[in-house]
Amino acid sequence: MLSKPKGRLFVISASSGTGKTTLARELLKGDKNLVPSISYTTRAPRANEVNGEDYYFVSKGEFSSIRKKKGFLEWANVFGNYYGTPRKEVEEHLRRRRNVLLLIDVQGAKQVKKVRPDSVFIFLAPPSKEELRRRLEKRGTESKKEIQKRLKVATRELDELNDLSLCDYRIVNREIGACYRVLKAIIGAERG
Amino acid sequence: MLSKPKGRLFVISASSGTGKTTLARELLKGDKNLVPSISYTTRAPRANEVNGEDYYFVSKGEFSSIRKKKGFLEWANVFGNYYGTPRKEVEEHLRRRRNVLLLIDVQGAKQVKKVRPDSVFIFLAPPSKEELRRRLEKRGTESKKEIQKRLKVATRELDELNDLSLCDYRIVNREIGACYRVLKAIIGAERG
Repeated sequence: MLSKPKGRLFVISASSGTGKTTLARELLKGDKNLVPSISYTTRAPRANEVNGEDYYFVSKGEFSSIRKKKGFLEWANVFGNYYGTPRKEVEEHLRRRRNVLLLIDVQGAKQVKKVRPDSVFIFLAPPSKEELRRRLEKRGTESKKEIQKRLKVATRELDELNDLSLCDYRIVNREIGACYRVLKAIIGAERG
Repeated sequence: MLSKPKGRLFVISASSGTGKTTLARELLKGDKNLVPSISYTTRAPRANEVNGEDYYFVSKGEFSSIRKKKGFLEWANVFGNYYGTPRKEVEEHLRRRRNVLLLIDVQGAKQVKKVRPDSVFIFLAPPSKEELRRRLEKRGTESKKEIQKRLKVATRELDELNDLSLCDYRIVNREIGACYRVLKAIIGAERG
């Protein structure tokens, strides 16, 4: 029989443009016992993204092969690209009493909820749909058509995360400093 | 011209049976700069409730007279009883740089949002509707008919608080200890 894992898995989901990447980086910097789960993806790296740090960038063939071996805790097709959370790494961290931070979309969070219902599910929401659009446009990394697509997905996700059984904490990210302090407190309050 | 108030108003709403009274008591105990807003009500005191501490218990005539003089920041009729938040006291606390804790229902929170949109709005949600029913029945202070009524209201409130522009923080109260620590952190992160 396997012994029960002692670390806690923190699943943070957020609409595009809510600042989740910055927040995650700060949380990891300030907490030695919190480690990131690094996802596999088939999408192309953005400027400044490093393989093995931000993501493991793999081909569709490699991704498919891992998926077939049940190597992902969850995986999803988002805007035509595949994303997956490596099962072994997460389980190994938890077994070593490390808390794991997993940044994924709502689709992925729902899968994790099924296989690891004892995780803590946190959602960062934009103050409004208008504010979300403004933030996406300001970022300037997506085309107008892509922004439309992302807004549509974000709206559906906002509806889904209203489900109490999926979302333990919903935080409207108005001011990133307050958001960071509250996230830190949630991890402190719920750690394994 | 009036100077800008320096304290912050924290509005906590919760369905019946989510433990909000216990949580508020603990938060006030541990924070000298946090003061409660004591509401006026026309309902009868429950066992152990003290006039001027838990509520100001007043007659319908007295309540109506204060209301007509615009003496309430918000007021509501809940299950046939009136509840009101005294405007002057709250404003005086904020002016003196005290943070104010206001426990009200969603109906009241919506009114406060209109007159004080700079407040912090927090909702404590039950893990599910089934759990809410269980908690209400366990408390044993209400009749079956009253529990039905409260469940109906709670369900409507849960839908309303999905509105991002009303609810800054939504916390599912699974475990009261974690809930307390996170509430404390939110007040710390957002204080005036």
